Amino acid sequence: MDRRIASATLEAKVTSAEEAAALIPPGSTVGLSGFTGSGYPKAVPLALAARIEAEHQAGNPFRIRVWTGASTGPELDGALAKAKGIEFRLPYNSDPVAREQINRAEMEYFDMHLSQVAPMAWQGFLGSLDIAVIEVTGIREDGTLIPSSSVGNNKTWLDRAEKVILEVNRWQNAALEGMHDIYYGTALPPNRVPIPLVRPDDRIGETGFRCDPDKIVAIVETEAPDRNLPFNPPDDAARAIAGHLLDFLSHEVARGRLPASLLPIQSGVGNIANAVLTGLVEAPFDDMTAYTEVIQDGMLDLLKSGKLRIASATSFSLSPEAAAELNADMPRFRDRMILRPQEISNHPELIRRLGCIAMNGLIEADIYGNVNSTHIMGSRIQNGIGGSGDFARNAYVSIFMTPSTAKGGKISAIVPQASHVDHIMQDVMVIVTEQGLADLRGLSPKERAKLIIANCAHPDYRPMLADYYRRAREGSYGQQSPSLLKEALSWHQRFIDIGTMMV
Amino acid sequence: MDRRIASATLEAKVTSAEEAAALIPPGSTVGLSGFTGSGYPKAVPLALAARIEAEHQAGNPFRIRVWTGASTGPELDGALAKAKGIEFRLPYNSDPVAREQINRAEMEYFDMHLSQVAPMAWQGFLGSLDIAVIEVTGIREDGTLIPSSSVGNNKTWLDRAEKVILEVNRWQNAALEGMHDIYYGTALPPNRVPIPLVRPDDRIGETGFRCDPDKIVAIVETEAPDRNLPFNPPDDAARAIAGHLLDFLSHEVARGRLPASLLPIQSGVGNIANAVLTGLVEAPFDDMTAYTEVIQDGMLDLLKSGKLRIASATSFSLSPEAAAELNADMPRFRDRMILRPQEISNHPELIRRLGCIAMNGLIEADIYGNVNSTHIMGSRIQNGIGGSGDFARNAYVSIFMTPSTAKGGKISAIVPQASHVDHIMQDVMVIVTEQGLADLRGLSPKERAKLIIANCAHPDYRPMLADYYRRAREGSYGQQSPSLLKEALSWHQRFIDIGTMMV
Repeated sequence: MDRRIASATLEAKVTSAEEAAALIPPGSTVGLSGFTGSGYPKAVPLALAARIEAEHQAGNPFRIRVWTGASTGPELDGALAKAKGIEFRLPYNSDPVAREQINRAEMEYFDMHLSQVAPMAWQGFLGSLDIAVIEVTGIREDGTLIPSSSVGNNKTWLDRAEKVILEVNRWQNAALEGMHDIYYGTALPPNRVPIPLVRPDDRIGETGFRCDPDKIVAIVETEAPDRNLPFNPPDDAARAIAGHLLDFLSHEVARGRLPASLLPIQSGVGNIANAVLTGLVEAPFDDMTAYTEVIQDGMLDLLKSGKLRIASATSFSLSPEAAAELNADMPRFRDRMILRPQEISNHPELIRRLGCIAMNGLIEADIYGNVNSTHIMGSRIQNGIGGSGDFARNAYVSIFMTPSTAKGGKISAIVPQASHVDHIMQDVMVIVTEQGLADLRGLSPKERAKLIIANCAHPDYRPMLADYYRRAREGSYGQQSPSLLKEALSWHQRFIDIGTMMV
Repeated sequence: MDRRIASATLEAKVTSAEEAAALIPPGSTVGLSGFTGSGYPKAVPLALAARIEAEHQAGNPFRIRVWTGASTGPELDGALAKAKGIEFRLPYNSDPVAREQINRAEMEYFDMHLSQVAPMAWQGFLGSLDIAVIEVTGIREDGTLIPSSSVGNNKTWLDRAEKVILEVNRWQNAALEGMHDIYYGTALPPNRVPIPLVRPDDRIGETGFRCDPDKIVAIVETEAPDRNLPFNPPDDAARAIAGHLLDFLSHEVARGRLPASLLPIQSGVGNIANAVLTGLVEAPFDDMTAYTEVIQDGMLDLLKSGKLRIASATSFSLSPEAAAELNADMPRFRDRMILRPQEISNHPELIRRLGCIAMNGLIEADIYGNVNSTHIMGSRIQNGIGGSGDFARNAYVSIFMTPSTAKGGKISAIVPQASHVDHIMQDVMVIVTEQGLADLRGLSPKERAKLIIANCAHPDYRPMLADYYRRAREGSYGQQSPSLLKEALSWHQRFIDIGTMMV
């Protein structure tokens, strides 16, 4: 068995998950590791959930406030939510049990820009952080911590928390060591200085976390896999979206508006993102780079192909097959991957400087290109804004992608007015559906509306949208962004009432 | 008469405004100087407007595409709009004639983040810039140009335009020379590097504009004042808002969450902004700094008081009295003011690094704190987003201020749902009305709603908002941001129908 704890002082703190969980009192604010199902603690939250359930059965209230990197796994958000143990949560969530509780008003959810989690934790108005529970790959002799498969906000939780519980996960590949770049140069104003990163390849920090050993109250050894979700092969719509997008990128290169190696790519996860990344393997762009949040299957393919020089992210988000492939061949990939704190992977200063090509999904866009990424029918949270605002506002080209319909055609992704806005029209440069692509850069709202309806809307909804827009051009209060207020949200209401937006 | 053109080569290009205007063909894209009524060309646009009117009377079409810094003066936007000579305009506009044409769909208006005007002009998708018309204070012997009372996008227009027309305005104080800081280190990615500014005081550039003399096709001498608007003394509501805000800032200093010299202040213009700045003269903060877009009357008062160490901006926006005072005493003020290109004054990298306290106005906010800064009743543009998005997204504390009602109580500034969104709830940390202040940092939407209704809404509208929110808590599709889609925009519709939002 490989030894992961090289510090004798710290090895003396090894204990069981149950004993570690007993150190977390009711009402605590707990900072947990984890970002998109990678690198989250897998034992202590489960033990804590069991303890919470036992206390609830004994009639004692027990809830905690949960801060994470982004979404995590079922052994964390799922277990704690099932135990009704989460009072407040930030930032991103994709756990279905937690989502239900949020949408039944049983859990308060602070949905924030991922770049701002660490700075706001330092700023102080979120309150103090009682305890951090952080998964690591190992502990060095000098007490520094070897990060796991995600970095997220771990640096900040370790710095800010009064007490620290570590999970040392032997399942994580020991060869992860050296891949991370933990930057210790951030500060609160007026002491902020330029972040010295000018290419996605740059290493500006350290390979491990510093942590005051006196704060470490327990260490739990685990051997448990990340939540690696199955790979969804691209469907026809995803391939069509990828095709339109690759045509656009080729066109921009031909016009001299993008270099032949493109600019650093940011890509969300899922079906469509994977189709785009797979398409890039065959596309005529070389020596590409990625500056993004997660390294998903398609990004790994792009690295293997040799087309991608470097991938900078804050986390992995792989299928079980891709995780196995990476783990079997880590040294081959390691030098071309960098995992950073999410305050760096998502930093507006760096995204703007690097000039990222940002590619994100959406729930709905209105005819002017205002995008809703979070709230179904305007009120029901899906996951959260995540890093999409960090990237869309600062990208060189900000692209949003979606199939033109959802729920078998009962929902149109293009609507008269977004029922909730996460990305204002100024931050939405390109919208792509399987129907086509709308390049909205430099256009007024009315010019945008014509393109979005013609190029992006599904043919079944296009006449309804064109009819709405024509009547809005006649009956609107003002004509900068024409609207009919009585109808603007009626499509959503119709879906709620009769299960379809279609008349 | 003081001589403002020290280059003999260039002096030979002096001509009349009419002859200069004759060099601008129909269909041209023209980049003009000017930011909030300062430093815009005052003669050539008037001559061009006369020429356009004459052509129109002769039955010949004649319109141009206008790019500026922000709003300008009646001799530019007003005259060209009256002549029906503007086909397309960017970015911010406050001219009433142009506004009417935009809202009648007679002029296309691209309302964009001010930080992005220069980078997007370089990016190329806005098309080429045919001609620049720039007001300067003087021309040096070496051909460099001494900037005027605003910098705006002049550097970019001078660099990008094929031809340049200069207006040398003798009305501008010759002692402006040396106040400007023109940074020439920006680039397109992948060649961007950190901007080496870490305090508002830092000078990182040159005091003049470079300009290829061969591109200069005409120089017009003028002696005409800026559009200096009368000072509006703060009314009761403005003073009350300022009072709540100053209490908040004192509280943050007491809690150790802001330094005693605060952080760099960004402030919009107008009645409320002036009340806040006036209040700061008496407040217990010393050695303050400002990193903002404009230096208005209140900022000048704060400099005079010795409380403000430095004001960095891109333009002046003064009353005639304050302009006269500044001009009479320029050497006293000059070393404590810096005028920069707006891509620097509004740069996300710098606003985030400096940690600005951003204070902006709004048209309406909804109960969750989504802010509409631009579209009255969701469709009719007022001015534009300007730099509010640059500052609100990146500020250390992002504050929005407004009286709780408008139009004598017929419009509530707090509504169930914003009819248009410019600032998403994540970017709105504090809302202040004369009723009170809501500190929304770290709160979920439902927690925000309770505070906004209780602290910010006018008592006449508070019961209606509370009733809406209570019913939304019962009948909403989801409970993250509860809404009733049939009613969400009904207040706006009622105002359109019967002239008041009140039932």
